[in-house]
Amino acid sequence: MSILAVGSIAFDSIATPSGKVENILGGSATYFSLSASYFTDVRVVAVVGNDFTVEHESVLKKRGVDTAGIEHANGKTFRWGGQYLENLNEAKTDFTELNVFESFKPQIPAAYKDSKFLFLGNIHPGLQTAVAKEMNAVRLTGGDTMNFWIQGALQDLRETLKYVDILLINDGEAKMLGGERNLLRAAQKVLALGPKALVIKHGEYGATIFFREGAFGIGRHPFRAPTLPIDEVKDPTGAGDSFAGGFMGYIASQEEINREVLKRALFYGGVMGSFAVERFGTERLQSLTREEIEERFEIFRELTHLE
Amino acid sequence: MSILAVGSIAFDSIATPSGKVENILGGSATYFSLSASYFTDVRVVAVVGNDFTVEHESVLKKRGVDTAGIEHANGKTFRWGGQYLENLNEAKTDFTELNVFESFKPQIPAAYKDSKFLFLGNIHPGLQTAVAKEMNAVRLTGGDTMNFWIQGALQDLRETLKYVDILLINDGEAKMLGGERNLLRAAQKVLALGPKALVIKHGEYGATIFFREGAFGIGRHPFRAPTLPIDEVKDPTGAGDSFAGGFMGYIASQEEINREVLKRALFYGGVMGSFAVERFGTERLQSLTREEIEERFEIFRELTHLE
Repeated sequence: MSILAVGSIAFDSIATPSGKVENILGGSATYFSLSASYFTDVRVVAVVGNDFTVEHESVLKKRGVDTAGIEHANGKTFRWGGQYLENLNEAKTDFTELNVFESFKPQIPAAYKDSKFLFLGNIHPGLQTAVAKEMNAVRLTGGDTMNFWIQGALQDLRETLKYVDILLINDGEAKMLGGERNLLRAAQKVLALGPKALVIKHGEYGATIFFREGAFGIGRHPFRAPTLPIDEVKDPTGAGDSFAGGFMGYIASQEEINREVLKRALFYGGVMGSFAVERFGTERLQSLTREEIEERFEIFRELTHLE
Repeated sequence: MSILAVGSIAFDSIATPSGKVENILGGSATYFSLSASYFTDVRVVAVVGNDFTVEHESVLKKRGVDTAGIEHANGKTFRWGGQYLENLNEAKTDFTELNVFESFKPQIPAAYKDSKFLFLGNIHPGLQTAVAKEMNAVRLTGGDTMNFWIQGALQDLRETLKYVDILLINDGEAKMLGGERNLLRAAQKVLALGPKALVIKHGEYGATIFFREGAFGIGRHPFRAPTLPIDEVKDPTGAGDSFAGGFMGYIASQEEINREVLKRALFYGGVMGSFAVERFGTERLQSLTREEIEERFEIFRELTHLE
């Protein structure tokens, strides 16, 4: 079933120990959409400037992504520069030029209103809430956020969390949002804010999903999907959004939403994140096959599977 | 089958966010032996001073550990003080008093020479090698080390690694020893130094075992055992040695040593490490039952197990 992704489209300049690129296509909506496109139909709402060309758009279109919701504004597209030279697990931002993204107000095309799944990429929580309120046919909403909003827009974020069924954040964000250094207790605090489930991403160690009591079935334990250590992480940019795309995309492709589906989705999230970092930018996500995805899913499953 | 553990016995003074204790029984050989005692017979070689009482020894004896190999030297027992107030994942050392441990030369009792399994706790690699050379009936040797020896006694350590079948270290140590920031490549470099397998411990994220090509059976992929996030980590001291005790103890309890056994051993390692941190010092490791261990093993297995 169709999934609507709202987020950013950006041009990124990135330096990693493996090399350097400038002004390549990126942004949360881009990574999410490409990743989810291997599982289901994807629609995007985002904003770009005059420098966003037909070739850029074709990257999404080639993967069947519906780009009618991309707003073309007068000005330059959002630009971000960062590097991972010291630490592959954390970007050091060199510059942020919001450009047309600064005044972004997501406009949902009428044709998108029947979307059954919604992903709220990492934008201001006030905008996330506005989108969530407009989408009345949605079965499940996934959402992302970051330290910047947890510190600077907590009241807005708390409101957003009432509309988010599954929040996907990393360890540091979970501890900050939960106000607890212990991950389990932080997760419990975050779930008390609204989400039915919380996915905490651990970078190279995989991800854990915590469930609110009684949500998506029975059981008191969280579930963890590992990732396989890979030979060379070329560019970590977009790993989290690619994870979210695999996770949400797989869920949207299933008839039912239950714990077993969410567990498998967590593995697919890890699979897509691990592909994303193998090349700079979106390169690897543009050229995958479903067979490659299934093969890696099997490897990840066997990674922790006892006979 | 019997396992011989060589390492330290210490009195620890520890401060964590959960509290503070002084001069409690600790040391690598202590944690390892108590943990392994739930799986197999354990013999210890270590050194203590005049302040090591019958009550201290009874902690080990009550768990059936053979303490005949503990040398009683004239002086004080090794003392360590540390705290985890800022970071539960890394101890900040307040003081180290080596005392009788400074001139420790492991003496293996004749009755221990038939031990089929050997664990070389974290002591000077020169001493580890001397012990390994003396033990001729050993089927499998496990070993630990730390940054201090990697930086300060690398040539000795390289010699030790020729005698170690399975090395157990953490992420930072593996990267330092392998001279690589990428974990997979670091693991490959470490395996090239001698060990047939390398266990890298990831703290709260579990552990991964990497195999040398063709060692312990067929297969090109590593294996990862997760741990369950726990509610309160009271005291992380000894988690690594408790992990090693569960890992080696389970292996020693099995007829055959193959990949499936090593995979299960990795889970048991995580189980024992997770128990150790629930109370200060060795308290939790003194009072476990095999049923509690099996119950947690099942929880950890289900944590990543897809139907």
